[in-house]
Amino acid sequence: MGVEIERKFLLANDSWRDVVQRSEHIAQGYLVSAAAIRAGTARSSVRVRRSGDGAWLNIKSVTLGIERQEYEYPIPLVDALQLLADLCDGSVEKIRHHVVVDGTLFEIDEFTGANVGLIVAEVELPSIDAAFPRPSWLGREVSNDARYYNVNLIEHPFARWEEESC
Amino acid sequence: MGVEIERKFLLANDSWRDVVQRSEHIAQGYLVSAAAIRAGTARSSVRVRRSGDGAWLNIKSVTLGIERQEYEYPIPLVDALQLLADLCDGSVEKIRHHVVVDGTLFEIDEFTGANVGLIVAEVELPSIDAAFPRPSWLGREVSNDARYYNVNLIEHPFARWEEESC
Repeated sequence: MGVEIERKFLLANDSWRDVVQRSEHIAQGYLVSAAAIRAGTARSSVRVRRSGDGAWLNIKSVTLGIERQEYEYPIPLVDALQLLADLCDGSVEKIRHHVVVDGTLFEIDEFTGANVGLIVAEVELPSIDAAFPRPSWLGREVSNDARYYNVNLIEHPFARWEEESC
Repeated sequence: MGVEIERKFLLANDSWRDVVQRSEHIAQGYLVSAAAIRAGTARSSVRVRRSGDGAWLNIKSVTLGIERQEYEYPIPLVDALQLLADLCDGSVEKIRHHVVVDGTLFEIDEFTGANVGLIVAEVELPSIDAAFPRPSWLGREVSNDARYYNVNLIEHPFARWEEESC
């Protein structure tokens, strides 16, 4: 188990693209849906992720905000594909770009499919108040906005946010 | 992934106790509660089990009856203890007795705590219509009765079945 401290930001502009070190395709779904979490019938998300030839099961406590318990276990790729197809309620797909600024890794997720247009940058920190670089492309912080949780993006994809808020 | 074909029975009498080969203590809880499954917000149970010094994460499709998709992964004992304490909504505890009859293994679960008094025998089969021994202690089949699911025994323990049915 680890405690994950993660802050999430929108992107102010596109200049991060010039400093991408590598990118990978990620598909992920959830065995516990956003609806179960909202209804209070689950205290954790259970995520299935496929990234390249690797696959992982991830358990994260559902506490809105920055600090959470996190557990992660590798699983066979064939299991992940079956779990995503049969037991998950939809999935999100994204390209994850790795950008390092002054020794700090930013993971920039560029969503595709129903969430196309959404790009968020995440930075993992050793403590809640740890300092970290603020490159010019880092925009507004959305760590405390549940709409940006991947589990919620399956049910309420970014492309439909505007019409749903009407 | 495996497909699990399992039939579950009550016990007609106590004579199975004379042929127990070994017994182990099991504690298990669920990251997906029975309520989430009933509400249709999850297609699988996600179980955390501790048995002796070992621990496992288990994912099972929720289809009432005999045949289900099943995935199981070993996890560190320390993770299991934290998951059971922090992220599961209660747990069941039981002594699992191993009884082999004519080469077929029966796992006889003798529940403790809020489910004390409940004993069920499970047999895993290679196909739905596979023949298996029927020792005199094997009672009524309950494979299709969801009350006997371990995930449901947390929320509705055996000791309260009578009062709840009034």
